[in-house]
Amino acid sequence: MSTWSQAGPRTVSEHAAAVAALLPPTGTESVALAAASGRVLAEDLTAGVALPPFDNSAMDGYAVRAAELAGASEDAPAEFPVAADVPAGRTDVPVLAPGTVARIMTGAPVPEGADAIVPVEQTDGGVERVRIREAPRPGAFVRRAGEDAASGAVVLRAGTVLAAPQIGLAAAVGRAELPVRRRPHVLVLSTGSELVAPGGTLEPGQIYESNGTMLAVAVREAGATAEQLSFVPDDVERFRAVLAERVGEGVDLVLTSGGVSAGAYEVVKDAMTGHGVEFGKVAMQPGGPQGCGRLELGGSRVATVTLPGNPVSSQVSFEVFVRPALRAAAGHPAPARPVVTARLAGSLSSPAGRRQFRRGLLDAAAGTVSEVGSTGSHLIAALARADCLIDLPADATAVADGDPVAVWLLDSP
Amino acid sequence: MSTWSQAGPRTVSEHAAAVAALLPPTGTESVALAAASGRVLAEDLTAGVALPPFDNSAMDGYAVRAAELAGASEDAPAEFPVAADVPAGRTDVPVLAPGTVARIMTGAPVPEGADAIVPVEQTDGGVERVRIREAPRPGAFVRRAGEDAASGAVVLRAGTVLAAPQIGLAAAVGRAELPVRRRPHVLVLSTGSELVAPGGTLEPGQIYESNGTMLAVAVREAGATAEQLSFVPDDVERFRAVLAERVGEGVDLVLTSGGVSAGAYEVVKDAMTGHGVEFGKVAMQPGGPQGCGRLELGGSRVATVTLPGNPVSSQVSFEVFVRPALRAAAGHPAPARPVVTARLAGSLSSPAGRRQFRRGLLDAAAGTVSEVGSTGSHLIAALARADCLIDLPADATAVADGDPVAVWLLDSP
Repeated sequence: MSTWSQAGPRTVSEHAAAVAALLPPTGTESVALAAASGRVLAEDLTAGVALPPFDNSAMDGYAVRAAELAGASEDAPAEFPVAADVPAGRTDVPVLAPGTVARIMTGAPVPEGADAIVPVEQTDGGVERVRIREAPRPGAFVRRAGEDAASGAVVLRAGTVLAAPQIGLAAAVGRAELPVRRRPHVLVLSTGSELVAPGGTLEPGQIYESNGTMLAVAVREAGATAEQLSFVPDDVERFRAVLAERVGEGVDLVLTSGGVSAGAYEVVKDAMTGHGVEFGKVAMQPGGPQGCGRLELGGSRVATVTLPGNPVSSQVSFEVFVRPALRAAAGHPAPARPVVTARLAGSLSSPAGRRQFRRGLLDAAAGTVSEVGSTGSHLIAALARADCLIDLPADATAVADGDPVAVWLLDSP
Repeated sequence: MSTWSQAGPRTVSEHAAAVAALLPPTGTESVALAAASGRVLAEDLTAGVALPPFDNSAMDGYAVRAAELAGASEDAPAEFPVAADVPAGRTDVPVLAPGTVARIMTGAPVPEGADAIVPVEQTDGGVERVRIREAPRPGAFVRRAGEDAASGAVVLRAGTVLAAPQIGLAAAVGRAELPVRRRPHVLVLSTGSELVAPGGTLEPGQIYESNGTMLAVAVREAGATAEQLSFVPDDVERFRAVLAERVGEGVDLVLTSGGVSAGAYEVVKDAMTGHGVEFGKVAMQPGGPQGCGRLELGGSRVATVTLPGNPVSSQVSFEVFVRPALRAAAGHPAPARPVVTARLAGSLSSPAGRRQFRRGLLDAAAGTVSEVGSTGSHLIAALARADCLIDLPADATAVADGDPVAVWLLDSP
């Protein structure tokens, strides 16, 4: 099946499609409202009650029959007996008898027979009798049952990303839980004999492991869940053993970094070639060497994406291929980062035939973007100062100061 | 001390300043890298090691002395014995003897004596002896120690919001934990005798509680932590009892909704007036009745903000007053929502003297914004369809189709 390496480099779009095809839409689960923030609604939400559920008062004041107040004014107030007191939450509101009014609070049910509310500020505020200084129009300050949403109406569409207002609405229509798309679960595993856990001591020739931590965080920021496995040295047997122990039900994706290029010790490539994962080049920089497929492991197959090991290559590859695929799988309506056009500050050269993703800083007010650091895929400090990626097309070889470029906004959802 | 109600309405800015003054900057705590996403770095991060920590190879290939390859070319390759094999992570790399080369992998330390790397693609890939087909320039494909960051350099500034790349950088410089600003902790309590928990059954006159759920989610989305207390009916004693039981160490803010307007049963106002909290009007719509102060409760004082009870008033007030104050307290560099200018689609009228925050839908491509729903502060379904607030200044009375308006983006961080 492995034809990628013979066929030559894939384009970014081709590899993105191959990765996306590994992640089918996730199913549905029910979560409590307090846990629904950021999740994607899985089904249309229908209002189980009308909003408001009943005619109610928009003001603190008096429920009246408007026709009985036709002549009332500042100079000629009308006086009525107060027949009832209706606080919010009163469930046994009596019918308003003609010639009477009811004292009523904001949100309280309008008594049958009443057709308008006079705000307390237009009265003397009386408790047993009240003098009213205005003639309300019928319907004044009455919130009609169902005027926000009818009972049975769809109030949120499947695919809505839930935040406080949508969750508040779900509560208002009586839902304690919501059906949401399950988050993809990702196993993150980085490889490299040179790696030492942060907090440990470096020998000469060693570096601190950063890709696994960075990718696990990025996976969670993409709305998925991540389990970061211990990173492993460049040892095929240990690599397969660590994976075999953890892959199983509930894993949607294995995500590795390192061990996929042309060197003599390419543990990921060596462990997975011939087992369902294809490796090859993508016409991009950083992130040329890539792999993906359905890894055969202990009789089952698990979607696998293998990112290169240089930290900038790994993180940029995640942004370009994995993040949009994870968000699409979870039903997110906007899986990709927002892309804007900015004018380049400075000039850049770019190799022909490879799409480049340079690290940039956007000056949104000026509409300009400038490169941070340079092309080196080890420049993680520069990556951490960037807030965007400058996306240079494969056929670009030189971009001049002031030229328009496409910019992926990394600090937007 | 209560002079607000006598002095007349506050402006939005005045009340925002009063709320912000209640929330001093939070302190610092240490969190594991995996938990640092979205947090604000509390101190400058200094690199404990240089990045890279040592000169290393950017390619799989051969470490050479460039001068010894001066004449090498496709037609006249130079041949060398391979004196050593240097995989990534090798900690005992020998000095490169003159007249020899070392096989080297990406990320592996460059042997002392070598000054360039020839990629394997420019060689025959030999293991004992190798034929090299090009003359590298000195320094070719060598990543210099410290070229990304010098040891001791500040690589992240205090105040940086941490995401995957910054957390990856922290790992790369050896940090397993980071000092971050503590998240403010908020007790959320809503009031109203008409409230029923979502999932329960409504009697006539009752509604489902939504403000507490909505505010608790909004607090967490603002980067703070929330504890949602059981909502209480309009009963001053129960209200004070619920609060007294939970307020204590570690509570930065009590946030209530409901019970602050001019009605006869204003539980929050009745419970807090004279106990350190002032109530009055803010010249805005929705959200006119507001309160804030330092509530005296059992001998201590706790910052308290009391929002009105209509759901739209409550959520808009949160956006305008509470969210920016919480984020500022946590050291966030951009506490406010992004504000853009758009052209109004349709026309709006607005009462003089009150700043209005209408719910809107932005069409970013067209540069236009239109109102969702209308001014009613009970229209929570309309609120849930909005993605922005249209901010109409207090002196505006009419805004015409096509007029520029300020828009707060609610779906941006």
